[in-house]
Amino acid sequence: MMKPEAASALQNIRVVLARPSHPGNIGSAARAMKTMGLTRLTLVAPREFPSTEAVTLASGAADVLEQATLCASLQEALADVSVAAALTSRRREIATPLLTPRQACPSLLARAAAGEQVALVFGNETFGLSIEEVELCNVLVTIPGNPAYFSLNLAQAVQVLAYELFSHTGQDLDALRPEVESATQQQVEGFYQHLEHTLTHIGFFERRPSERLMRRLRTLFNRSQLQREEIDILRGMLKQIERHAPDRAQ
Amino acid sequence: MMKPEAASALQNIRVVLARPSHPGNIGSAARAMKTMGLTRLTLVAPREFPSTEAVTLASGAADVLEQATLCASLQEALADVSVAAALTSRRREIATPLLTPRQACPSLLARAAAGEQVALVFGNETFGLSIEEVELCNVLVTIPGNPAYFSLNLAQAVQVLAYELFSHTGQDLDALRPEVESATQQQVEGFYQHLEHTLTHIGFFERRPSERLMRRLRTLFNRSQLQREEIDILRGMLKQIERHAPDRAQ
Repeated sequence: MMKPEAASALQNIRVVLARPSHPGNIGSAARAMKTMGLTRLTLVAPREFPSTEAVTLASGAADVLEQATLCASLQEALADVSVAAALTSRRREIATPLLTPRQACPSLLARAAAGEQVALVFGNETFGLSIEEVELCNVLVTIPGNPAYFSLNLAQAVQVLAYELFSHTGQDLDALRPEVESATQQQVEGFYQHLEHTLTHIGFFERRPSERLMRRLRTLFNRSQLQREEIDILRGMLKQIERHAPDRAQ
Repeated sequence: MMKPEAASALQNIRVVLARPSHPGNIGSAARAMKTMGLTRLTLVAPREFPSTEAVTLASGAADVLEQATLCASLQEALADVSVAAALTSRRREIATPLLTPRQACPSLLARAAAGEQVALVFGNETFGLSIEEVELCNVLVTIPGNPAYFSLNLAQAVQVLAYELFSHTGQDLDALRPEVESATQQQVEGFYQHLEHTLTHIGFFERRPSERLMRRLRTLFNRSQLQREEIDILRGMLKQIERHAPDRAQ
């Protein structure tokens, strides 16, 4: 028996597969999810879906496929999400610390139990997640393994994460529960747009590379997992700046 | 890099597949093993082996298949083994307590590190392990999961066990960690002073409680564990704001 609060926490966790190439992997991922009590699957621009091969490999988890959400972009898939964990095995220039599944899962589960929408984001089988996709996430997870042969396929990676999440459902999560309202991806994105607008307004990018700097700033704020109230404070600052500094963007 | 003692412990652990029906599963299991540093595979009376399907699904782990040991019986496969852990999901009349992988793996790994031969024993895809096979084992392991749908396939079960074993090797993520220079407390404090100065400059605190807001902002930036380079970017922004907005603090 699963504790009711564990079951409802798992319902707030979605698995997002970004641009999966092989429908069989979608089916195997659905099966892996369901074995560990996860049922919400989001597919971002899958090459082929729906697919009979996916249904075959899903085995008894065809219901997960039937209820899957289809999105055109990762941004759309994460719009109402406040914690997005990107699975990545590559060393990147991104400054967010990499966590193991064991390190990341207790807090992901606690936040889902507190009613937040949580996403586990997996990239394409061959190319993984793009840097732009990773930048939409605020937690980076990597599955430790054999350094000489690291070749978990997509469904195996989903299985490991789902297993690790489930293994923490028996625990009392109250102590880990944050008492704050996290900002959704959409709110955070709104802040980034506003920030970029303000920095352009004051001429900050006149002699600086805007793309690189905005990436750095996103990474910085993603790491801190912004709260809704903090977004209000930050946007209040931006408004004040725009009100008092002459517009140099024109 | 794997620590030498972890690598040698994993070399004393074999995966035993008893009477596997589908060669594809043997290949996927080999791949799952190798991702977690396990290389010793024993096959007890496989229905079909060697097999090109197995090699295909093994992907880069064909060497595990090539070096696999073939046995006619589980008894033969376990002859030199001192700890055999049977994977089973059924409740049995056997009085051995069932352990989760998390409970079982530290001791399996410790005994392997001490030079003992350890086996992880998996049954047939459809029928699992027979009661006679389970009786040859001295540890029973069950993978906890969704009580309403428990359908891990053979390779997924091998993946979970191999992952769990590996997670206790002490392998850390140093190799994957980005090389960033964290800001010192003094640099961070300098940024906070600068931020407060700028916000006063643009009149942000005229109708807002400065102390409470500065505390919130400190908390936000503290959470993100600022890097030295990020401080430079942020202070560059503050300078630009002060340069272009008239001073309202006077």
